[in-house]
Amino acid sequence: MKCRKCQRKAVINMRQHKLSLCAEHYTDWIPDQTQRFIEKYAMFGRQDRILVAVSGGKDSLALWDVLTKLGYEADGLYIGLGIDGGIGYSDQSKSFCEIFAAARGLNLQVYDVADRLGAPIPLAADSVHRGRGRPCSVCGMSRRHIMNAAAVDGGYDVLATGHNLDDEAATLFGNTLHWSLEHLARQGPVLEARTGLVRKVKPFCRFYERETAAYALLRSIDYVYDECPHSEGAKSIYYKQTLNKMEDERPGTKLHFYLSYLAAKGQGAFAETADPGAERLHPCPTCGQPTTAPGECAFCRTWDQVRERSALLL
Amino acid sequence: MKCRKCQRKAVINMRQHKLSLCAEHYTDWIPDQTQRFIEKYAMFGRQDRILVAVSGGKDSLALWDVLTKLGYEADGLYIGLGIDGGIGYSDQSKSFCEIFAAARGLNLQVYDVADRLGAPIPLAADSVHRGRGRPCSVCGMSRRHIMNAAAVDGGYDVLATGHNLDDEAATLFGNTLHWSLEHLARQGPVLEARTGLVRKVKPFCRFYERETAAYALLRSIDYVYDECPHSEGAKSIYYKQTLNKMEDERPGTKLHFYLSYLAAKGQGAFAETADPGAERLHPCPTCGQPTTAPGECAFCRTWDQVRERSALLL
Repeated sequence: MKCRKCQRKAVINMRQHKLSLCAEHYTDWIPDQTQRFIEKYAMFGRQDRILVAVSGGKDSLALWDVLTKLGYEADGLYIGLGIDGGIGYSDQSKSFCEIFAAARGLNLQVYDVADRLGAPIPLAADSVHRGRGRPCSVCGMSRRHIMNAAAVDGGYDVLATGHNLDDEAATLFGNTLHWSLEHLARQGPVLEARTGLVRKVKPFCRFYERETAAYALLRSIDYVYDECPHSEGAKSIYYKQTLNKMEDERPGTKLHFYLSYLAAKGQGAFAETADPGAERLHPCPTCGQPTTAPGECAFCRTWDQVRERSALLL
Repeated sequence: MKCRKCQRKAVINMRQHKLSLCAEHYTDWIPDQTQRFIEKYAMFGRQDRILVAVSGGKDSLALWDVLTKLGYEADGLYIGLGIDGGIGYSDQSKSFCEIFAAARGLNLQVYDVADRLGAPIPLAADSVHRGRGRPCSVCGMSRRHIMNAAAVDGGYDVLATGHNLDDEAATLFGNTLHWSLEHLARQGPVLEARTGLVRKVKPFCRFYERETAAYALLRSIDYVYDECPHSEGAKSIYYKQTLNKMEDERPGTKLHFYLSYLAAKGQGAFAETADPGAERLHPCPTCGQPTTAPGECAFCRTWDQVRERSALLL
């Protein structure tokens, strides 16, 4: 297997592109492609200030690396969730982000959930769900809120996340199995800004997970290998496994599925079904962030409840 | 496992409905549900003359049985494709249809492709594809043409096919993986009549394959067990296998996938993307059946070619 560009030994073969590349050309190819996607989906321009949500995993750190390499002004945001799982998951993750930023002289903001909100995510979720079920919904909702607030408060033009094609295809697969029109109408490389909501972009949405992993490896980016200890048995993992089997049998399945969905959306599928009424936003009276239902937002309601219940336990 | 209705030993447990039934109640339940679907999707009424396309398989014979049991006036149409596959596939299939019809005093029409068109399907497909590839596209196109012509010429109000939920979910899965909007806009329990095209209905579209198989067994309907010898490796089989794995892990996956798709379509998804221009129909100058492109229809063009090439070989 030889590099298509220089005939040296290739380190990766991307079957869906019929393309093999050596280490040098691959670590150029990923930023080149990222720039192509940034322009194709009109994600942001040279003048924009970008906040990259970094988890300590390969995708978000590789994204931060690529954006910096491409010359964009990109700061990092790490959210400390307080997840241990017997492996010090959050501590490890934070450390990888800090080492990455320090080595490159980049600006990393750290938001610690327990310090700022009074409880780490697993404890908060336990108190809301009374000890049953996974903390993923509380975690996701809290992270979305915190990321948006950090981007808005910091005056950033855009929030970038490291979602890769495997993530996007799995989300799309779930939304499709349930034909969730609300989600099908919104998924994509860009979620436009609205009053109080920063523009969100996913510059890696067309890269397979193995491609971002290979990039991180070749660029010597240290990252947390473990999945979140709470993700075991999650639906997203089940969707990924199903898609992985299909990808094995028919290489390119995920990319084709995602790109043909974007094309269908571009042709106006779901345009008629997005309910504009349901999407009207109101500012939360407590935090000021936009929320769909009038009254306090889900974030404020949830964390009020967490603090009340924690106080009862003390 | 006991019958929910009479507490006798159940013969089938339908996990997605949390329903177990004995033989007697199950063979009542299938027609009752079929009648419910016929009404729910406004498929046809008591006064309509129905042509059931029967292949000799469990689904179509079970459908003919159920429609007759429900008191509908339903004739059968068997299309002899001339497929042998070392097992006399078409001969067997025809024989099961004839035995079924004779035992019940029902009217079966037989259309023999080789007699009427000059060559059996596998030979025709070979001559069109020059020996490469599967005959499935020529077969499907020819069957659709013949079924419609038989229904229109015979003055039937509706053409019923035995497609079950496994068939429909697999088709939907394929259309979704490719986001084929044209197909997504059309799939459903009913395809309305248009000039020259008979109304098409699928009264079994909400029954799992195992449910129609159990019904055929309990009603002592003899049917051809073998799949079409040409179906091996077909995409539809691959989609079915993938969905079967998902159904095993999460019972009800197929039914939920299909029903939520119908709900999404009912809410107007794809309404904007169905291109009315592409769907304008013209009568074929040779056979008179409607076709989307001006000029001879695909059926006439294909079979003209088959006869020309066969003549060269003789």
